Amino acid sequence: MTGSVRAAIMDSPGSMKLREFPNPEVAESAALLEVSLCGICGTDKHIYQDQIKSHPFGLPTRFPIIPGHEIVGRIEKISGYAARRMSLTGAPIKQGDRVVPVVDLRCEECNGCKNHPGWPSCEKGETYGWGISSQDAPHLFGGFAEKMYLLPHTKLAKVPDSVPDEVAVFAEVLAVGYTSIARISHSLQLAGEGSSYLGNVVIQGSGPLALAHVIAAKISGVNRIVVVGMPEYRTSFMQQFRVDVSIDADKFSREERREKVLQGLQAKGADVVFECTGDPSVVEEGLSYLNPFGCYVVAGIYSDSGKTTTLNVQKFVSGKYATIIGSGGQTELSYAKALRMMESFSDLFPFEKIVTHKYPLEKFEDAMRTAVTEQSMKVAFEP
Amino acid sequence: MTGSVRAAIMDSPGSMKLREFPNPEVAESAALLEVSLCGICGTDKHIYQDQIKSHPFGLPTRFPIIPGHEIVGRIEKISGYAARRMSLTGAPIKQGDRVVPVVDLRCEECNGCKNHPGWPSCEKGETYGWGISSQDAPHLFGGFAEKMYLLPHTKLAKVPDSVPDEVAVFAEVLAVGYTSIARISHSLQLAGEGSSYLGNVVIQGSGPLALAHVIAAKISGVNRIVVVGMPEYRTSFMQQFRVDVSIDADKFSREERREKVLQGLQAKGADVVFECTGDPSVVEEGLSYLNPFGCYVVAGIYSDSGKTTTLNVQKFVSGKYATIIGSGGQTELSYAKALRMMESFSDLFPFEKIVTHKYPLEKFEDAMRTAVTEQSMKVAFEP
Amino acid sequence: MTGSVRAAIMDSPGSMKLREFPNPEVAESAALLEVSLCGICGTDKHIYQDQIKSHPFGLPTRFPIIPGHEIVGRIEKISGYAARRMSLTGAPIKQGDRVVPVVDLRCEECNGCKNHPGWPSCEKGETYGWGISSQDAPHLFGGFAEKMYLLPHTKLAKVPDSVPDEVAVFAEVLAVGYTSIARISHSLQLAGEGSSYLGNVVIQGSGPLALAHVIAAKISGVNRIVVVGMPEYRTSFMQQFRVDVSIDADKFSREERREKVLQGLQAKGADVVFECTGDPSVVEEGLSYLNPFGCYVVAGIYSDSGKTTTLNVQKFVSGKYATIIGSGGQTELSYAKALRMMESFSDLFPFEKIVTHKYPLEKFEDAMRTAVTEQSMKVAFEP
Amino acid sequence: MTGSVRAAIMDSPGSMKLREFPNPEVAESAALLEVSLCGICGTDKHIYQDQIKSHPFGLPTRFPIIPGHEIVGRIEKISGYAARRMSLTGAPIKQGDRVVPVVDLRCEECNGCKNHPGWPSCEKGETYGWGISSQDAPHLFGGFAEKMYLLPHTKLAKVPDSVPDEVAVFAEVLAVGYTSIARISHSLQLAGEGSSYLGNVVIQGSGPLALAHVIAAKISGVNRIVVVGMPEYRTSFMQQFRVDVSIDADKFSREERREKVLQGLQAKGADVVFECTGDPSVVEEGLSYLNPFGCYVVAGIYSDSGKTTTLNVQKFVSGKYATIIGSGGQTELSYAKALRMMESFSDLFPFEKIVTHKYPLEKFEDAMRTAVTEQSMKVAFEP
Repeated sequence: MTGSVRAAIMDSPGSMKLREFPNPEVAESAALLEVSLCGICGTDKHIYQDQIKSHPFGLPTRFPIIPGHEIVGRIEKISGYAARRMSLTGAPIKQGDRVVPVVDLRCEECNGCKNHPGWPSCEKGETYGWGISSQDAPHLFGGFAEKMYLLPHTKLAKVPDSVPDEVAVFAEVLAVGYTSIARISHSLQLAGEGSSYLGNVVIQGSGPLALAHVIAAKISGVNRIVVVGMPEYRTSFMQQFRVDVSIDADKFSREERREKVLQGLQAKGADVVFECTGDPSVVEEGLSYLNPFGCYVVAGIYSDSGKTTTLNVQKFVSGKYATIIGSGGQTELSYAKALRMMESFSDLFPFEKIVTHKYPLEKFEDAMRTAVTEQSMKVAFEP
Repeated sequence: MTGSVRAAIMDSPGSMKLREFPNPEVAESAALLEVSLCGICGTDKHIYQDQIKSHPFGLPTRFPIIPGHEIVGRIEKISGYAARRMSLTGAPIKQGDRVVPVVDLRCEECNGCKNHPGWPSCEKGETYGWGISSQDAPHLFGGFAEKMYLLPHTKLAKVPDSVPDEVAVFAEVLAVGYTSIARISHSLQLAGEGSSYLGNVVIQGSGPLALAHVIAAKISGVNRIVVVGMPEYRTSFMQQFRVDVSIDADKFSREERREKVLQGLQAKGADVVFECTGDPSVVEEGLSYLNPFGCYVVAGIYSDSGKTTTLNVQKFVSGKYATIIGSGGQTELSYAKALRMMESFSDLFPFEKIVTHKYPLEKFEDAMRTAVTEQSMKVAFEP
Repeated sequence: MTGSVRAAIMDSPGSMKLREFPNPEVAESAALLEVSLCGICGTDKHIYQDQIKSHPFGLPTRFPIIPGHEIVGRIEKISGYAARRMSLTGAPIKQGDRVVPVVDLRCEECNGCKNHPGWPSCEKGETYGWGISSQDAPHLFGGFAEKMYLLPHTKLAKVPDSVPDEVAVFAEVLAVGYTSIARISHSLQLAGEGSSYLGNVVIQGSGPLALAHVIAAKISGVNRIVVVGMPEYRTSFMQQFRVDVSIDADKFSREERREKVLQGLQAKGADVVFECTGDPSVVEEGLSYLNPFGCYVVAGIYSDSGKTTTLNVQKFVSGKYATIIGSGGQTELSYAKALRMMESFSDLFPFEKIVTHKYPLEKFEDAMRTAVTEQSMKVAFEP
Repeated sequence: MTGSVRAAIMDSPGSMKLREFPNPEVAESAALLEVSLCGICGTDKHIYQDQIKSHPFGLPTRFPIIPGHEIVGRIEKISGYAARRMSLTGAPIKQGDRVVPVVDLRCEECNGCKNHPGWPSCEKGETYGWGISSQDAPHLFGGFAEKMYLLPHTKLAKVPDSVPDEVAVFAEVLAVGYTSIARISHSLQLAGEGSSYLGNVVIQGSGPLALAHVIAAKISGVNRIVVVGMPEYRTSFMQQFRVDVSIDADKFSREERREKVLQGLQAKGADVVFECTGDPSVVEEGLSYLNPFGCYVVAGIYSDSGKTTTLNVQKFVSGKYATIIGSGGQTELSYAKALRMMESFSDLFPFEKIVTHKYPLEKFEDAMRTAVTEQSMKVAFEP
């Protein structure tokens, strides 16, 4: 195995550079992925802007890192053992297959893994992109690179033939939306006759995560969807994805927003509100949209910025039987389901429009800037 | 219909007096109850001490009131129509039957009633004890009285023969515990294989509501139960009810409490925490006890005291997949289920010890004082 | 109140005639509906052909009847009291409103009504069309008539402005599909991570009930839908409604059908199978399509024909963790949800094509014949 | 490693003999168990009596076998790797630990394992006792032996110190009861307000599996439990385990049994019926006990005897909204939960009485005869 692999690494917040790593030897139980596209996630931006104190379960960013965990690529090397082991659904993965890797690694031995199979609650907690340092060989543990090294516990979702890379790269994000829907399906049972669909939904936020929730909610049969986000570039963008009303959060007061939300819902309140902003200060406002028995899903506040929320628990939670569900992240199987959504509902949503900007690796500064300004939907590297 | 009915009324917070009302004419669709016992609830105490700004759904206390909504009594008068209509389960109620009235009245016509049948989410919101003024005839709309007037939409749970009044008077409180368990059963599904039982439970609080949650949790098969409460009178009292460990909250620091809780659970965290204190300042501490995917039930913060909670949402909710469920109050059917628990599990719990103090109506000052000092479990009027 | 009302009555199986009834006085708590359209249901056909021994809960057909329970019409007369009481959702019904009546009447007093609010499990069991005799004044208790008398316990779903009568007449059937989906949502939780969507579905049958299940399943986000039905008129018809594969049951052997079903699903088995044929002999075959942990919903076997099913319970149920759910009929709220589906998803399905044939009342023989031959989808009377 | 291991093997139905196998070398990823006790299961008896055509998922009995899969023993040898891998809950297993092995082995690579983690739905299906032949080295794949070889994919549940071997040997059976309860918890939601407890339960059967369901149901808070079984030895035995009424099935007609069941329930029907007989001919009778919306769990019909059931699907399933759930077998985690039940509820049930007869290995004929005659509850080998 010769040659080298280029990657964009981050030494510390705000400090990125291009580096070459040796083309790795691939162990029997591991695999190698040629990266086709890798999206820039809000988490990547927050790390870059030094806005994160810790990740779920208190895990740190393990600098230096190769960022990037929204990945689609082609299997360059895999053994028969790994092919069966890494497959999400049981059908073995072959060399040349296009796949989306599950970004969270599970040891499958700890209490978390044994009690919540398929969920990222491993007590030893490793995550590509920010949770495994690029200091240690074989280094290639993130998606802002030409190739990625897939450790033995990695799971892979195969991309259906009809789903192009430009769409599949969004699977990791859509999987979060799917997981949020799955988490609420229980809680909604009490609100009617046991079904999760045909309620009214508000989504706080208008970035890619918000978009994933719009898609997952619409596919699960909700009635009306109102988005409250910013900037206008993004709230306008949303309207291509079957959103009923899109409200520019920065143009109105809290009271005006509330009025517009209820108008948009054509109802007295929302059955479900998805928080997709990452900002703890929006929680009380989001709860205020809810109907009695409504459900608030915290999906965007994924990493700890140190900010807190002040809340009248009686008024917004117990006094109206509301439920708050902490989501964030996604299950392993949800990746496969996200890809199936993309396959089955391609006539309902213009999935191919989601990636608005593509950059080669060496343009990492332009790429990060475009992502941060939010005059974009999904920005992706095409190494 | 002649004679008069004595009642203890409250004109405003802190101001109570004994009054006589005329023995009422009973309309065809209504009924009359001879009150046997009426417990003093935390809500009664909070109203008395002027600690409440509003009740669920923003409803006010409608002074002057006859407080009291934990009631058991004997039907003095009921028509055939009301007998069928008021029955919770379908079996008609007869004159002379011992019953526990559901304290929340539902109009059965509004959006809330139609979408959440059996839940106290009526948009016209009436509740005996604090939500219907005693100013309006026939006045007798609370349990601190010899008799109580049962309005047409009242539902009644029949007391099984083997359950004495001293036990049945606790049915309204136990019904809250039952309802909390029912609300979590869905959310717990993800934490394992679909069952709500055999997890570890922490209960914040050691008053009657906490006790109701101890009983309901134990009957639903939880593994270990740790109570964190005060004063010592109450934490000691709890130990008669199959609590594994009872911790005096006022004798330890937050960090010490946490350590003692985990020792008591013999585990790394709790699967469910029930808030039964009524104090919004305990929420973050309670959430900190939870395992990943754990469930926090707000059951005690029933009325709005104006106090808020400050919370790191990522650290305590989304970063570990926690769920917060607003409960408070109870479903109609839960009254009947509470009474069945009392019947079926009388060998497991000394239900008859729960009422520690009884007073005649005229001793309302002594009764309220005993309740407020918390050197008691349940204090009840025996009119 | 003068004039008369024409209706098509059925004295006994196979014996229908046109009759005139007096225009009724409308009691304060009742209402009068001008029927716009009334569909012919499979149940109407089975009664006509003498194929029914009893209905759910063992109820008989109460001849003579005015058949017809798939109704849309315009409120001719309603009092303020009835307007609030009959509204499904809380918003009062007005004279002139277009509505779909819930066909099952609930006493709201019996054990069934109190324990399963909103479900047709009333122990006194009345149903328009076959369950209330037209012998008793005011006679107009079915939809094959110019007007229909709405008894006090009737619930009404308001038709949204954008949904024409030709579409709304299908709401009662679509509500059955919705209810089936609601019933399975729990059982599917074990099969993955707690969500009901994106599984593979087989539907046995290709009539209107099958179509309702296609629509409800697709809206709830299932992946692939395979229909196994007959005759070819109907399996072809289905293909306009987003069915992936439609198989003519009568052209293949059981083994060939199974092979075609699995090909159509692109999978080893189905996650859910909906029985929509009304024929008990298809049950074992339907179960044979299921994946381990799959769910079989009996939706079409609504009335008792006396036929039995022979089944290897180990092979088809316990040996692969299958669930069989008895559905049939629908909840009250599902009518409102069906109408909201018609409003929200009109761009996904050509709802307006479902009624393929309309007849005036006097053509009842032609109408019944067209319905029975199954060279039609939904046949409706336009009185 | 020297010496030999004695085992009771079965060459074909009815043909058993004692045999010695070499003391095995233990691979790095495997382990060795010294068997303390091994119960005789109904499945062992059915194999012995040639009553089984196949097991779940169509798997054959792989003669010659060492029968026995209800095992408790002491770890004689285990590596650090296997100690973590085999642990059910994450806490490593040590040499000398008392454990109960999970009898089903999962490859963790197939579609079944990936989609239903923790459930015995592996497509490669191996099960100790009947599913792995003793022909292949190291031979010791069943519990009727002094030692048992634990293959790499085996999971182990650690026995709590306070639970003696005589009780722990019942964990495998109790785990089936726990799993049945877990499976119904969803389906019961519609029947009331979302909770699985305080319903009325009938259990068909009175052997060890029936007993396991009595215990699991009681711990989950059901109201009344009626058992319908035989012979009298067993129905009497049941009364020590908080059964309300125990009915001798062989002394009454079907109609009389039904009457006695309803009397015993003090209700119009059962909310849940557990089939624990293994006999397909009891299914329709069991369904006839159900209330509308009731749930029938097939737990005892585990292996295919070739017998079928004849059923009026409308009358017993769809016409009253019943659910039939195929259970049988148990999840991995349920073993740990069964052991926790034994620890937490030892004051409620005399678990130590369940094993009524113990035999040394060489008395295999006596042991099988005692088990078959059913004048016993659990018969166990003490090698």
